[in-house]
Amino acid sequence: MKWENDEILSMIEQKKYTDVREKIINLNPVHVGEIIESLDVSESILVFRMLPKDLAVDVFNYISSEVQENIISAITDKEIKHIIDELYFDDMIDLLEEMPAKVVKKILQHSNVEERKLINEFLNYPESSAGSLMTIEYVDLKKNMTIGEAIEHIKYTGINKETIYNCYVINEERKLEGIVSLRKLILSDYNLKVEDVMNKDVVYVNTGNDQEYVASLFKKYDIIVVPVVDMEDRLTGIITIDDIIDVIDQETTEDFQKMAAMAPSEEAYLDTGVFTLAKNRLMWLTILMVSATFTGNILKRFEDVLQSVVVLTFFIPMLMDTGGNAGSQSATLVIRSLALGEIETKDFFKVVYKELRVSLITGIALAILNFLRIYFLQGTDFYVSVTICITLLFTVVLSKVVGAMLPIIAKKLKMDPAIMAGPLITTIVDAGALIVYFSIAKVLLHI
Amino acid sequence: MKWENDEILSMIEQKKYTDVREKIINLNPVHVGEIIESLDVSESILVFRMLPKDLAVDVFNYISSEVQENIISAITDKEIKHIIDELYFDDMIDLLEEMPAKVVKKILQHSNVEERKLINEFLNYPESSAGSLMTIEYVDLKKNMTIGEAIEHIKYTGINKETIYNCYVINEERKLEGIVSLRKLILSDYNLKVEDVMNKDVVYVNTGNDQEYVASLFKKYDIIVVPVVDMEDRLTGIITIDDIIDVIDQETTEDFQKMAAMAPSEEAYLDTGVFTLAKNRLMWLTILMVSATFTGNILKRFEDVLQSVVVLTFFIPMLMDTGGNAGSQSATLVIRSLALGEIETKDFFKVVYKELRVSLITGIALAILNFLRIYFLQGTDFYVSVTICITLLFTVVLSKVVGAMLPIIAKKLKMDPAIMAGPLITTIVDAGALIVYFSIAKVLLHI
Repeated sequence: MKWENDEILSMIEQKKYTDVREKIINLNPVHVGEIIESLDVSESILVFRMLPKDLAVDVFNYISSEVQENIISAITDKEIKHIIDELYFDDMIDLLEEMPAKVVKKILQHSNVEERKLINEFLNYPESSAGSLMTIEYVDLKKNMTIGEAIEHIKYTGINKETIYNCYVINEERKLEGIVSLRKLILSDYNLKVEDVMNKDVVYVNTGNDQEYVASLFKKYDIIVVPVVDMEDRLTGIITIDDIIDVIDQETTEDFQKMAAMAPSEEAYLDTGVFTLAKNRLMWLTILMVSATFTGNILKRFEDVLQSVVVLTFFIPMLMDTGGNAGSQSATLVIRSLALGEIETKDFFKVVYKELRVSLITGIALAILNFLRIYFLQGTDFYVSVTICITLLFTVVLSKVVGAMLPIIAKKLKMDPAIMAGPLITTIVDAGALIVYFSIAKVLLHI
Repeated sequence: MKWENDEILSMIEQKKYTDVREKIINLNPVHVGEIIESLDVSESILVFRMLPKDLAVDVFNYISSEVQENIISAITDKEIKHIIDELYFDDMIDLLEEMPAKVVKKILQHSNVEERKLINEFLNYPESSAGSLMTIEYVDLKKNMTIGEAIEHIKYTGINKETIYNCYVINEERKLEGIVSLRKLILSDYNLKVEDVMNKDVVYVNTGNDQEYVASLFKKYDIIVVPVVDMEDRLTGIITIDDIIDVIDQETTEDFQKMAAMAPSEEAYLDTGVFTLAKNRLMWLTILMVSATFTGNILKRFEDVLQSVVVLTFFIPMLMDTGGNAGSQSATLVIRSLALGEIETKDFFKVVYKELRVSLITGIALAILNFLRIYFLQGTDFYVSVTICITLLFTVVLSKVVGAMLPIIAKKLKMDPAIMAGPLITTIVDAGALIVYFSIAKVLLHI
């Protein structure tokens, strides 16, 4: 890439605007967006207004909603109308969702009744549904067109479509009859009919389908766009792969957040307020804090053991941490595999059996290592060492098996498996580990 | 989707092969692949061989490497040659990397010296480099072609190209001069020259670039294919977005694994052997287990405090768990934001200041809740309650600030931030929390 940003920024500083314009109109819209983002408000508006109309719309898509808001507030109604007309429908909906009410009002002034009805319909699709992701600018064809006619049709209507690489064949009721790629059209005999080359085994989604399901279809079928139909099977829109990549990132971020015991948030970290961040974290921290006091109660129940053999206390952090880490490993692998569709709930016993074996191997290895360290190197009492190592083995097995089971059970119960991650597993397993610890101690150390 | 899989499976059982063939040739290759996957070895080969040649190649791409191996071992040399000739180059390289040596030999018999040289070159690109992801089937154009000529050129050469939606304009030395989309060509006047409509601000990558960087460009520029050039800036291949989605999933899975203290593995969970799984987990478990014993040593140092006020022991699990969870939350958010490019190392102080405020809010809230619970509800001694609550506040602040700092420091040191997640943070913060706990106890409880 040719990064001429610095050169252009210094031109702007020197107010050489003619030179700036000349340079800027040949740049990738993403780079123009970066330049505008780095300017102060008045300069950014100035540079934006010197862009040719079409570039202006492209650049508008690549700047932050903050700068978008500044620009919309400053430009003329005519300029706004041009941007609104040229934005793809899904991008306009995203814009309306981000802008404050007074800006939305300014934008909606420029749409007619019918458009406003359509906008309202789109704003009403549940967040993270296929309906909220789709755009309405697609190419539709009739099955009795020849390929030559179809290509002419694309040539004359394609300019405002988000993609022309997949075309949708519909009947008079707008029901989807087939799909044909531009590739197929270009590479076929122009005298054939569309129905001769169209694919009837169409992969499609409903407006109400969840975005995670939609993303899974893109992965499964290696497609770059999917048609969306309504309840009556009428074609209503398409979803393109650039939006799906955002969905994949967003769903993964949600999983990360849930797995670290937080309420998921869509906003970028630096854009999220301190109080929102605190609120997202407090609920789970409180639940887990209260649950952890049950573990404290177990210690209280075994107070006699603790007081007669104080050395047992010193190994509690090691046992708790190792249990937590071992459980976190299994839970993470299982949650991720469920998310990628590599394992399903029917694999429950296969997974549990696998984790049982893995936990026995790791547990025995850790127990032996630990015995060598605390008995031979540190000279800990033999029976205390044995108690610790047996507990260690038991803790690793328990936490790994529980860590693998809970996410699958959650999925079966239609809950989000990502909740059943490290923090919750740790809290659950801690209690079990301590009970075993003191029970073995009582027997082996005759307390 | 029309799921006719069950119907077809029962036809296969009844050996109605003509009917099966008729049904199957109209299906999406992904569905045919699913049917073949569910059959036993001999049936799967039988069904595969009844597919028309072109469908066979498509289906071949959607079946597991195990079934691919069975099929290659069973079909004739001529059939193998057809598949090899029709597979895209990147898919063939993937196939060769998966197959055992004797199958690779069988495949390579059908390639000539030049092809074998090229294959070797591709097999030598480092794993997870742009070179290892690219394919060589792209459309190249010359800048002095008219658009009409360019479309004719695409029409005659496009059939074997992985994508025809982006075409690359190169000079005699194969150096990249520009890029033009099929969309632009179709929608332009056919008498214009390619150079009139091509885009010269080309986004491209080098064969040696890391796949994570390549994926970040796809996200930044909303592109569906990127050209790859060699050290001398000659066009050598292209990378398409379907491979990038796999890269995104793979990189995220690696992050999940590292954050849960495991060595990353590319294989799917169910395909990974028990010993490999155990090995991937043991190293970090051992390191963290040994580190956790330092926390035990702190308990030992404060043995006198523990013995005079045993009740302090009961709150150790709650303090440790809450610290671990609070740190894990911050570390996870920071690691994920770094991975998505939402924050950079230069944001260090901004992030730390933010976490300081968030941790004060959450810490104070948790401390107050906890005080209400243990002093008023459980009737714990006043000074013990105060000790616990101050420690809780301190632990939350320490773990959140450390949890936010370490991933950014790791990134600055060119290490993977994902290592600095929950497990490591917990181990580090535990020690600090306990030292503060007992130090405050000593003062407040006059021990």
